[in-house]
Amino acid sequence: MTTADTTATYPTYPTAHPSSHPSSQTIRTIGILGGGQLGMMLAAAALPLGYRCVFLEDTPNCPASLYGKVYSTQQLDDFAAAADVFTLEFENTPVKTVQWLQQLSSEGVKQGMYPPAQALEVAQDRLKEKTLFNELGIATVPFVSVGSQHELQAACDELGLPLVLKTSRGGYDGKGQFVLKTPADIEAAWAALGAAVSGDGELTPAPAPLIAEGFIDFSREVSIIATRAQDGSIRCYDLVENYHHQGILAKSQAPAIGTSHLLPAAQSAIKTLMTQLDYVGTMALELFVSKDIAGNETILANEIAPRVHNSGHWSIEGAITSQFENHIRAIVGLPLGDTDNVQPSIMVNVLGDYPNVADVLAIDGVHYHTYHKETREERKIAHITLMPSDVAQLDPALQQLVAVLPNKMGLL
Amino acid sequence: MTTADTTATYPTYPTAHPSSHPSSQTIRTIGILGGGQLGMMLAAAALPLGYRCVFLEDTPNCPASLYGKVYSTQQLDDFAAAADVFTLEFENTPVKTVQWLQQLSSEGVKQGMYPPAQALEVAQDRLKEKTLFNELGIATVPFVSVGSQHELQAACDELGLPLVLKTSRGGYDGKGQFVLKTPADIEAAWAALGAAVSGDGELTPAPAPLIAEGFIDFSREVSIIATRAQDGSIRCYDLVENYHHQGILAKSQAPAIGTSHLLPAAQSAIKTLMTQLDYVGTMALELFVSKDIAGNETILANEIAPRVHNSGHWSIEGAITSQFENHIRAIVGLPLGDTDNVQPSIMVNVLGDYPNVADVLAIDGVHYHTYHKETREERKIAHITLMPSDVAQLDPALQQLVAVLPNKMGLL
Repeated sequence: MTTADTTATYPTYPTAHPSSHPSSQTIRTIGILGGGQLGMMLAAAALPLGYRCVFLEDTPNCPASLYGKVYSTQQLDDFAAAADVFTLEFENTPVKTVQWLQQLSSEGVKQGMYPPAQALEVAQDRLKEKTLFNELGIATVPFVSVGSQHELQAACDELGLPLVLKTSRGGYDGKGQFVLKTPADIEAAWAALGAAVSGDGELTPAPAPLIAEGFIDFSREVSIIATRAQDGSIRCYDLVENYHHQGILAKSQAPAIGTSHLLPAAQSAIKTLMTQLDYVGTMALELFVSKDIAGNETILANEIAPRVHNSGHWSIEGAITSQFENHIRAIVGLPLGDTDNVQPSIMVNVLGDYPNVADVLAIDGVHYHTYHKETREERKIAHITLMPSDVAQLDPALQQLVAVLPNKMGLL
Repeated sequence: MTTADTTATYPTYPTAHPSSHPSSQTIRTIGILGGGQLGMMLAAAALPLGYRCVFLEDTPNCPASLYGKVYSTQQLDDFAAAADVFTLEFENTPVKTVQWLQQLSSEGVKQGMYPPAQALEVAQDRLKEKTLFNELGIATVPFVSVGSQHELQAACDELGLPLVLKTSRGGYDGKGQFVLKTPADIEAAWAALGAAVSGDGELTPAPAPLIAEGFIDFSREVSIIATRAQDGSIRCYDLVENYHHQGILAKSQAPAIGTSHLLPAAQSAIKTLMTQLDYVGTMALELFVSKDIAGNETILANEIAPRVHNSGHWSIEGAITSQFENHIRAIVGLPLGDTDNVQPSIMVNVLGDYPNVADVLAIDGVHYHTYHKETREERKIAHITLMPSDVAQLDPALQQLVAVLPNKMGLL
């Protein structure tokens, strides 16, 4: 929720530490870039471990404000002074801010900025991201860079139609995209997105080529979440199956049923990426399940999220150690916790309007997590995790839940 | 942690509600009497459900202060104005305060004070408590009231020696008790505790007879925790086995192994008590496992705690719905959650000194909960719950944990 901050001046940080800490625990405060629900849930996981959080966020009454002090992006120096180690919860955090905090850490003024800037840079640019995937031997949909209407024509020839044209930077939840079905669409697509190439318009934070992606048949979308510690050790969660509605995550089922044959490749992909990026913290990798030429199921990497991820919210109840706690453990240099599932669970997002909480809590095995946000159409304002003690009640509980949600998100 | 407040004047509370609330959620803020770790964990459970907490507590930097505003007992009227519904986390809360908040609720100014004053009155007086148990057909150790040295002599004759003489009010963790082994101890026992009868000295908050309790052979201590909703429905957790060291809870194992034959009687006892007291919220009942004349195992009720309880901390991870969340659900009038175990777990208290957190978290399946307190000998400053995904690792994990705790509490 931090606003883009490309013009900020970065204060020279004093080298003396602002407060004395007992030597037994040199990190006491975690600075989080962003103050949305992800920051809120990170702080909720940090407090029982003995860490307080502060947030850099321009919305004063953001979800995270219930758990710690919020600094505006104009107060970056105060924010930096208040914390010992830094992380982010907002994917569009300016890379410069992260680089500056990393620099302070390499000078010994601060104790770390995780994940590193290179992970954020890759995640903020679809072309860099998919290029890295392929360089590391991780399959993706076919794609090409598009810097002009002429190159868009060439992309259509190379990839065939239909294809999806996207801004390589910015855009989320289906915004900044154009599906081309016939050659006649080329002009309209360029008219819609071409301005992003020169950086004009509202589509993208900086000039960057577009990316054209070939269409693939996929049977389902899954994601894998893992946490990497400062010593390089990695713990992976089970594969999760995700259901999107109108470009927004509606439901995650953990573990994804019938995906054990895909787990080794997914684990290998995320471990390779994390190691290559020298990543520390929790990361998500979104994958499509497709078929290879021989007709066998295979995975294609779509994108990474360099942070805790909506498709991992089930882990608060459904895993021995949640993605949030493991992220905190990683960035403060503590050993990671067990990522095994406790019981199968389903997480459902609440979009736009709040349900009647009494109706929700009448369902056995339900866990309600509000984000304390004002309602707004399609806004993620809460999530609900179903984990009944009797696994056979999981699907009936889902039906009961969707029945009482104002926004059914195609789940009925 | 609230200081006794017997001389407070109770402000006349204005009948107009201090803030307007959307009709969909008339309760938004919960006022908690006390701000220790129990209040902290109640607030942590309340926030995801959409409720904020404020606390009445004379220690400004108490554990709960990380989760909400703290009012001193001198600011009782401001505290009352800030909240919609009230509860307590501190057993020695003045009954008068609870009665006043209950009165405001019965006048419709506030929306409830749970549990009710009569539950607190019973819990604060060992004589009233055990008398109520027996009236309801719940067995206890034999006991008599002692108001003079002469009555102490009579108690020794009636109950036999050894016996335990206790103040009926005040005292905790073994304080305010005297074990009489021979008739020669009568004088010393009376010299130590007799002042409590007239209310002199520091032993007890008000004049009250002593209680003499007969010794019984018991094989172990267990407790049952349950939550009662406003509609009278009750959900019980499994029996837990507790291990005390020097009068302080060291370890709780959930569920208690080999106690299924005792569960019906324990559930019946706590349900009877809760219904009789018109209780709303979470309550604990401590029990001794003894043998009847026929040699069969049986339970004897020791005492109730009219609040969430240390022997239920395991439920944060080990039960589908924790004792804290169910207490919050009960007091705001929401349906109760499933109390089933997720996996077997062991909770260990951290007393006096903090361990090295990295050593603790290196144990798989460990959950660390610090209370952010200054260290002090024998003080409860954190708890740790062990819930490894492989149940066979539970005992090895306990050994690993105790090895890295500064205070072993007799667990090695």
